[in-house]
Amino acid sequence: MARATVRRRVLRLRGDERGERADALAAEEPLEIRVGGEALTVTMRTPGHDFDLVAGFLVGEGMLHTAAELAALRYCAGTDADGLNTYNVVDATLRGGRPALTTHRNLLTTSACGLCGRDTVEAVRTHVRWPVGADQVRVSPRVLYGLPDQLRAAQRAFDSTGGLHAAGLFTAEGELLCVREDVGRHNAVDKVVGWALREDRLPLAGHLLLVSGRASFELTQKAALAGIPVLAAVSAPSSLAVDLAEELGLTLVGFLRGEGANVYTGADRLA
Amino acid sequence: MARATVRRRVLRLRGDERGERADALAAEEPLEIRVGGEALTVTMRTPGHDFDLVAGFLVGEGMLHTAAELAALRYCAGTDADGLNTYNVVDATLRGGRPALTTHRNLLTTSACGLCGRDTVEAVRTHVRWPVGADQVRVSPRVLYGLPDQLRAAQRAFDSTGGLHAAGLFTAEGELLCVREDVGRHNAVDKVVGWALREDRLPLAGHLLLVSGRASFELTQKAALAGIPVLAAVSAPSSLAVDLAEELGLTLVGFLRGEGANVYTGADRLA
Repeated sequence: MARATVRRRVLRLRGDERGERADALAAEEPLEIRVGGEALTVTMRTPGHDFDLVAGFLVGEGMLHTAAELAALRYCAGTDADGLNTYNVVDATLRGGRPALTTHRNLLTTSACGLCGRDTVEAVRTHVRWPVGADQVRVSPRVLYGLPDQLRAAQRAFDSTGGLHAAGLFTAEGELLCVREDVGRHNAVDKVVGWALREDRLPLAGHLLLVSGRASFELTQKAALAGIPVLAAVSAPSSLAVDLAEELGLTLVGFLRGEGANVYTGADRLA
Repeated sequence: MARATVRRRVLRLRGDERGERADALAAEEPLEIRVGGEALTVTMRTPGHDFDLVAGFLVGEGMLHTAAELAALRYCAGTDADGLNTYNVVDATLRGGRPALTTHRNLLTTSACGLCGRDTVEAVRTHVRWPVGADQVRVSPRVLYGLPDQLRAAQRAFDSTGGLHAAGLFTAEGELLCVREDVGRHNAVDKVVGWALREDRLPLAGHLLLVSGRASFELTQKAALAGIPVLAAVSAPSSLAVDLAEELGLTLVGFLRGEGANVYTGADRLA
């Protein structure tokens, strides 16, 4: 099976000096996600925790809600030129059969396509099963400030490649439960959510999700579909991420750096 | 039409202090891309330069190669609750009719799905029309070192939101020709390439493309399909980006910061 990092020779330029050295790269490979044997989508991801990635992806699409609904996950098909399994195809079997949503056009993120941001927010709202808005969790700013250092300390591959996004799941007291890395920030979140589902921890009421980069609409959707009431990002949120968080009653924190943060929605949870 | 930034009230936390203030957010809205009236894909993007985005996207998918092949671009359909055009649907009319590639499963990035990275690289290679590997351009490291500051200086929306990716097109002498920003880094590249196509500058032989973040497989593909021989990134490349660049003879530069850079492929172009 492929590894999370790959070593390559590089030419290193420093001012007018140049020299060769070995460098570690974040691995990137395609993963085809199937449900009930039918291809759903392909994502470019860093190999590793693939079952978590698939389970979390399906949660984010509103197709899977609890561990009990997931019958099986397995690598299938997909061989390379030498006839070896590429481990780049995963099939999920759901109890109750395959949901009707099987084309990309019907994936939740883009189902309101061609309409306005308002409709996109509404499309997600109708798929949210867990009432994150009613979550009574309170988080102290001091706990928030401590999260990025914990995430960074747990990022093993980033240290060697400098090229991976990370997502971390925390308790309201700031205890780190799970961290996952990937070249795609959405994949890192899927891997965390899928880990939680497979541990039968969904919905993730009372929990915090921290992402290493920016908070997009898509990441906010994934947090909400997993029942996570607080999403924090080291960098900026987008307008539509804020709109969705406000609609759902999710607390959205951005620019979480040092002893500072901006709270865009759900500020009442900051005790 | 929507703007690139949106203002919101935020709760600002600094240590034990808290206060409200206005903050500018990077705008994010869905854009449906149609070709010959048929929906091809939806991307979450920052509104603005939408025609460039659509043209550049089609170049990156191997559906469009020169300005002469593009008959028309127009906003169509898509009205919001008040019956107003959302400007979130763009239809491209190509001379010679609509290409057969019209489902997401057939989009170039994911057409080798379920196979290995090797096959994904091969799928792109067969679609490249411009021989970037034969491009004789030479670039001085000193020119390279100067690019990030130029890109950053030209990023107007980033300064107010802190949340936008950027892509910049440069001559081999380091002259900035076009810079575009977007919440999605792939969109920023599409906007630059689409600008160039509409200016009838394709293929972009002898040019450099600089991206503000990491260099993924997808961004390398987009550079190659536009005929750009040198792709530089402020942050790390992925393994598959390096594999594709090597296969195509494209120069891939990463960690371009201060007076330093790593050259992963095509180092002979660094004069």
